[in-house]
Amino acid sequence: MTDNARVRPVINRLSTAEPDFDARLETLLAWEGVSSTEVQQRVDEIIAAVRRRGDAALVELSNRLDRLAVGSMAELTLGPARLRQAYDGLPAEQREALAAAAERIRVYHEHQKPGSWQYTEADGTVLGQQVTALDRAGIYVPGGKAAYPSSVLMNAIPAHVAGVREIVMVVPTPDGVLNELVLAAAHLAGVDHVFTLGGAQAVAALAYGTETVPRVDKIVGPGNIYVATAKRAVFGQVGIDMIAGPSEILVVSDGGTDPDWLAMDLFSQAEHDEDAQAILVTWDGAHADTVAASIESLLPTMERQAIIAESLAARGALIVCRDRGEAAALINRIAPEHLELSLADPGSWLGEIRHAGAIFMGRYTAEALGDYCAGPNHVLPTSGTARFSSPLGVYDFQKRSSIINCSADGASALGRTASVLARGESLTAHARSAEYRIKP
Amino acid sequence: MTDNARVRPVINRLSTAEPDFDARLETLLAWEGVSSTEVQQRVDEIIAAVRRRGDAALVELSNRLDRLAVGSMAELTLGPARLRQAYDGLPAEQREALAAAAERIRVYHEHQKPGSWQYTEADGTVLGQQVTALDRAGIYVPGGKAAYPSSVLMNAIPAHVAGVREIVMVVPTPDGVLNELVLAAAHLAGVDHVFTLGGAQAVAALAYGTETVPRVDKIVGPGNIYVATAKRAVFGQVGIDMIAGPSEILVVSDGGTDPDWLAMDLFSQAEHDEDAQAILVTWDGAHADTVAASIESLLPTMERQAIIAESLAARGALIVCRDRGEAAALINRIAPEHLELSLADPGSWLGEIRHAGAIFMGRYTAEALGDYCAGPNHVLPTSGTARFSSPLGVYDFQKRSSIINCSADGASALGRTASVLARGESLTAHARSAEYRIKP
Repeated sequence: MTDNARVRPVINRLSTAEPDFDARLETLLAWEGVSSTEVQQRVDEIIAAVRRRGDAALVELSNRLDRLAVGSMAELTLGPARLRQAYDGLPAEQREALAAAAERIRVYHEHQKPGSWQYTEADGTVLGQQVTALDRAGIYVPGGKAAYPSSVLMNAIPAHVAGVREIVMVVPTPDGVLNELVLAAAHLAGVDHVFTLGGAQAVAALAYGTETVPRVDKIVGPGNIYVATAKRAVFGQVGIDMIAGPSEILVVSDGGTDPDWLAMDLFSQAEHDEDAQAILVTWDGAHADTVAASIESLLPTMERQAIIAESLAARGALIVCRDRGEAAALINRIAPEHLELSLADPGSWLGEIRHAGAIFMGRYTAEALGDYCAGPNHVLPTSGTARFSSPLGVYDFQKRSSIINCSADGASALGRTASVLARGESLTAHARSAEYRIKP
Repeated sequence: MTDNARVRPVINRLSTAEPDFDARLETLLAWEGVSSTEVQQRVDEIIAAVRRRGDAALVELSNRLDRLAVGSMAELTLGPARLRQAYDGLPAEQREALAAAAERIRVYHEHQKPGSWQYTEADGTVLGQQVTALDRAGIYVPGGKAAYPSSVLMNAIPAHVAGVREIVMVVPTPDGVLNELVLAAAHLAGVDHVFTLGGAQAVAALAYGTETVPRVDKIVGPGNIYVATAKRAVFGQVGIDMIAGPSEILVVSDGGTDPDWLAMDLFSQAEHDEDAQAILVTWDGAHADTVAASIESLLPTMERQAIIAESLAARGALIVCRDRGEAAALINRIAPEHLELSLADPGSWLGEIRHAGAIFMGRYTAEALGDYCAGPNHVLPTSGTARFSSPLGVYDFQKRSSIINCSADGASALGRTASVLARGESLTAHARSAEYRIKP
């Protein structure tokens, strides 16, 4: 099998013992979602058009870019009744699976709700933090072949749990194609309105508002390069979530998991698109060979074989390392979006893992379970951004306000300190404002 | 006084009863921190130069833009001993005030530390969330006249409390001028290294790393338009905090606070720069007149009179509204960075306030106390972004990982749901990966 793999590299084979390991890994991991100047200019024009001409621009752009023939925004608007109708119209099995997933996602996210807090100091001064929800959230859902009802649940339910007053969803309908499962998911997730808009024009409408589309406070959800570029451009006017790169998984195996299971777990990542990245790390070289064999024998049976094959050949890897310590170091270096610990004792690894979007523990916890219905969010930091960012959560739809309530004694004491520091910064109005509160 | 104010509008006077109130308020609040194409191109060039040539580019750019004459990065690097020396060299009064402020800020931020959590379901499946700190944070501190030691404390202490392993600070030294108070604050706040770099080149160095400057995971701190543009450009490669606009305060007064105190509170905001915004709202028209009188009589006594006068004339306002309800609505519409509730019973307002960066409650709680030493952070969302963002905090230097550990029974049940949903999305590798875990 190893010989066979060398002849036809279905998936890259790396070993930490090779002198060029670091460079090869770096090359495999490299990803930069750059917007060309053309995309940037196009997006700037679209945003300017939507800000200037509102609904009229949305209708024109949607007709042109999504090949529609609508006359007004009314034809691009779906209300709650239409969403409920989509849900009611689903086959029972799909309706029940969607409802079961939504309920588990809701329960998990309820655990993320933080409380407001306060504490009182000896002189009566009160300090604290008040947590409030966003007024209005915008959910971008890709249309066409990548329209995923699970993404609707994962983006909208945390907003709903957070207490957002109004959840607005946009989803493009290229050539007029509507996905009933997506609308049904919107119904379940508590979405208030849907506009069948996409691209930079949908992002601009949500960020600035039009006659029909209400301005939101934050825009979340994945999209193509136009959507990502538009989100970056409107950041500051509204909040945004991370700008997502291709999806990835790092599987760490101790050699005890069925190699077919592991091959399929890698495929489940690779089937997303050609840029998706599936990597397995093990310190058992023979096990790496058996996984490679499973990959080769299962690949021809896959519906999305072409995408999987391209993804594995371009960005996939089986990495043999020396020991558990090297595997842990690789985890933190890669900071994977999905980390699958296919191991006898995954719990003992948790303390060493500093960077990972979601950690799937044990041989039974396939990433696919988390993608749909385990409960935690499937919107996760990609391309190493788990170094500094988190899964989408209730906290993304809330914000905090600091609370400061000084007693007369507290203000007098703080006033002395503030006065010295303000004068050190030559900000004398600050100093005098503080000094007014100092007791004589 | 009202007549006098009309003749010489030291500060804008608005009333919610006027028919053009909405339009006038909108105009006053309008702010957009746009980067010109020139700035954007210049920043792109600087980032490309630092990525390509590392330290050499940093030395060249610093010599050119900050008018220095250094030969290597060693001359732009300050270690812990130099920071400690700055602290030890301060006059006792400043040293003690800085230490007192740092300790209060530390104590407040300790309250923000979230815990990791887990829960176990009936079938033994464990779900949870693990909180970890960033490995490395970068703090941008403006140099020159706007070099504020308090900003060093407010940016670095939350990172330190969060458990960040390494805190790197950059501060430009135009014409070679170093601010000892800033270095002393860095010592107190737990900064590990300081590089005397500024502008887009400092942001690029932190985002991508050079031979000398370590790559960080997140960059926080205010800066000019070049810094803001560079932060927006590197967002995704690293995390960033909000892109700050000019500072603002909204004071709500019930008429019972000394008008001189209120005038000085407005001045303390206005003295930051000409774009800063100071607004007072009251339903007591006579009180608005007495505050206007205080403004006029105190203004000539201020060291930063010219800046204050320009800020108040251009962006300041005294607004008379009908009643308490209108005042509360104005708070939520403006979503102020600083909200001062100069009222007899500020506690009764808290439940109605949906959007504000920090809430200063009662007549004694001057914003200046919060700016320096009350404890909560003074890095706050500006320009209405309190609608969707929060004060800088410990949470900005931590991230979460989802934990999913399915029991064999749990995986079997979840596998059925996941399989139905994955097939609904035509992702059959996902479905088969889940189906492997279904018990026969």
